[in-house]
Amino acid sequence: MLEVRISVWAELDEDGKKRLLARPKLKNADDLPEQVCGIIKAVRNTGDKALRFYSQKFDAVDSNELVLSDALQQQQLAKLTAECKAAIDLAYHNIRTFHSAQLPKDIKLETSPGVLCELKHAAFDSVGLYIPGGSAPLPSTVLMLGVPAQLANCRRVVLVTPPGQPKASDIAPEIIYAAQLCGISEIYTVGGAQAIAALAYGTDSIAKVDKIFGPGNRYVTEAKQQVGKDPLGAAIDMPAGPSEVLVIADEAASPAFVAADLLSQAEHGVDSQVMLVSNSQELLDNTMQAMNEQLLKLPRAMIAKKAIDHSRFILTADLETAAKVSNLYAPEHLIIQTNQDQQLLPKLTNAASIFVGAWTPESAGDYASGTNHVLPTYGYSRTHSSLSLLDFYRRYTVQTISSQGIKAIGPAIITLASAEGLTAHANAVKVRLTALDKQSKHSSEFKQVPVSSK
Amino acid sequence: MLEVRISVWAELDEDGKKRLLARPKLKNADDLPEQVCGIIKAVRNTGDKALRFYSQKFDAVDSNELVLSDALQQQQLAKLTAECKAAIDLAYHNIRTFHSAQLPKDIKLETSPGVLCELKHAAFDSVGLYIPGGSAPLPSTVLMLGVPAQLANCRRVVLVTPPGQPKASDIAPEIIYAAQLCGISEIYTVGGAQAIAALAYGTDSIAKVDKIFGPGNRYVTEAKQQVGKDPLGAAIDMPAGPSEVLVIADEAASPAFVAADLLSQAEHGVDSQVMLVSNSQELLDNTMQAMNEQLLKLPRAMIAKKAIDHSRFILTADLETAAKVSNLYAPEHLIIQTNQDQQLLPKLTNAASIFVGAWTPESAGDYASGTNHVLPTYGYSRTHSSLSLLDFYRRYTVQTISSQGIKAIGPAIITLASAEGLTAHANAVKVRLTALDKQSKHSSEFKQVPVSSK
Repeated sequence: MLEVRISVWAELDEDGKKRLLARPKLKNADDLPEQVCGIIKAVRNTGDKALRFYSQKFDAVDSNELVLSDALQQQQLAKLTAECKAAIDLAYHNIRTFHSAQLPKDIKLETSPGVLCELKHAAFDSVGLYIPGGSAPLPSTVLMLGVPAQLANCRRVVLVTPPGQPKASDIAPEIIYAAQLCGISEIYTVGGAQAIAALAYGTDSIAKVDKIFGPGNRYVTEAKQQVGKDPLGAAIDMPAGPSEVLVIADEAASPAFVAADLLSQAEHGVDSQVMLVSNSQELLDNTMQAMNEQLLKLPRAMIAKKAIDHSRFILTADLETAAKVSNLYAPEHLIIQTNQDQQLLPKLTNAASIFVGAWTPESAGDYASGTNHVLPTYGYSRTHSSLSLLDFYRRYTVQTISSQGIKAIGPAIITLASAEGLTAHANAVKVRLTALDKQSKHSSEFKQVPVSSK
Repeated sequence: MLEVRISVWAELDEDGKKRLLARPKLKNADDLPEQVCGIIKAVRNTGDKALRFYSQKFDAVDSNELVLSDALQQQQLAKLTAECKAAIDLAYHNIRTFHSAQLPKDIKLETSPGVLCELKHAAFDSVGLYIPGGSAPLPSTVLMLGVPAQLANCRRVVLVTPPGQPKASDIAPEIIYAAQLCGISEIYTVGGAQAIAALAYGTDSIAKVDKIFGPGNRYVTEAKQQVGKDPLGAAIDMPAGPSEVLVIADEAASPAFVAADLLSQAEHGVDSQVMLVSNSQELLDNTMQAMNEQLLKLPRAMIAKKAIDHSRFILTADLETAAKVSNLYAPEHLIIQTNQDQQLLPKLTNAASIFVGAWTPESAGDYASGTNHVLPTYGYSRTHSSLSLLDFYRRYTVQTISSQGIKAIGPAIITLASAEGLTAHANAVKVRLTALDKQSKHSSEFKQVPVSSK
């Protein structure tokens, strides 16, 4: 029998509030960074040989070709059911529709006459998508990463996923089909920190990529952090942490719906956290009861129970206070089921993705509403963004100044550079203004000074 | 007499090319992370007391009020020259014009009937701007960070800068005036790792901010990295490193201009790197000569000389190869002065800011063209973006699904969740579809089930 103690917000002092909303500490082995650093070094030194070694050691596959050939992809695809195919098609459609609207626009304007400034977007040339394996295939994550990569038109999109069982090539047909829809044909059966190292630095089989996307276990997360810090490694999408949801519900909410939403988060992993904040004691009690009923039917009940052990039920005086609690916690997923959703929405900051109303379960966003399910978590949603099409582009600027332009802004640059004590900065303008001066006086002498093509 | 050896690109093997383009190693003390960690801990434990202690220890100021009061700001402002004021006004205008065009637009659309998805932008509530002190005041950096903060309409914008000399409150009037233009009145005279710690965690005098922007020395950089990793700390703008420029020039370029541009980068610091890539031996030789001539007149010649010690002059067969060299190096600043700038531009990837043509010195972008001078460097421009207005916003998503919407996409969600082995995810949809089913059959029984406000 599950029983989460209900905490009454108004009875807590500042310290108690802080403790109540603190995330569970991550229990990583102390030597995780060194372990991962060792794996990365091995892959940099011996390449594919190291990848095969770790496949045997960690994934218990005897042989790993690393590359999932077209023929093997086709072979797996034949196993896909029509129902699954249709569901992936629908999710692909919605995700593509939402992300298509995010295509960035270049900017080009004159800030002063003769001073042309541009902001340009360049899609990453090559990106690596990490798709976790393990207990279940995650075709939804393929879509969440593959659709924006396809829309950004990255030249090369690489998918890595842990080797299948019993054969390395036994990769779920759902993953391969989702990849196919996204135009991805380069698939490698390698996972863990070794896959991240291969993507960041390259091996004979797997060429280096510019940026790595996707969730993973603590080894993958640590490896992403390490290669992301190295300018010669690869950029990464965002910091990762355990998944979490916070639900704000009042007496108008259905306890069965709320319970189902909390459990759907709790089944992710034992380190998931679920939070229910309500102004109604009755809703809190009834939700607890509904959770106990629904839990009986869940195959992953053991996982969910452990997650619920470190979860919170919080009673607040009103919904406004509930919104404040949510802002303090800064959840990855925020579900609101109240009779004043629209009034609450503008007050809700610090959530990465918000699910509004009784008919919007979190699983809709996980799979098929169209929004991206790669989200900052563990408090990072205060300051980090949910994954968007923009994350597949690098922004850079271009300026083209005409002789007229430098005449206009040059004196100000000289003044500012001089104020900052940077004489050579001022001089780079002075040599040009002097040349222009002479040019206008004796135009024939300075033919060799090039004139801007503008 | 300066003499940089000219490297002939075609004569190098792969390894030689790599070595030639490798950045100089950063010579940080081994115990830098621990030193900085100690400073951060002290600020977290003793707040303002620690800030005053470090002002005395590192900045040699006897007393530090920390807050630069309005009265003291006005007092300093009175010292500003009309010329400086006008120059800052012009820079402010151009930077504001370019960044105004970057205002993000929210997105709202139905991906399927009844499935409403939104991408929203929320400006950071509070941001901290770090303005380095030391040898020269940097009003330009105030504008580069303050203008986008002002445009994003962040509720609270805080400026920190190392204490002045001899009094802590002796802050350059240029900095205060630039801050005033950007609507910033909250200014603290504290610098170094201790300032970053105060911004990230708060003290009695300085309230915590959500995100920290701005360049700094190795202590500041290390402190930013440490607080940026902590979800309870503050986000940071980008990884930092020494400044650098790469110039691509051909025989059409003016050696005097190229030399002035290289020196303006070299004077930044002894760890700056300048690279000249050309298909013309004559241009390389003449630029070297011009650098030697110009160097004689530079007050910061000693710094520039040391920077040039680890710089490169590279001779390529043609401009196309020069573009490839630039792409491999991935410079922070890229200047092109050739007779085919427009043809080269599309081939140039991996530069953070590009300066096109004879009349576009890098110092124009440093101060007044309108583009942002906060740029990824040290190889990070391969994967990171130049600072833009977007960096002052958090992106998040909202979805609102109607009963009709969940009926339409619910079955696909159940199929996908089941394929991924996530029964509770499927169940969160099933309970809703069941309720809707019963509702339509016996509409009177289910009044308490809320209907989406959509």
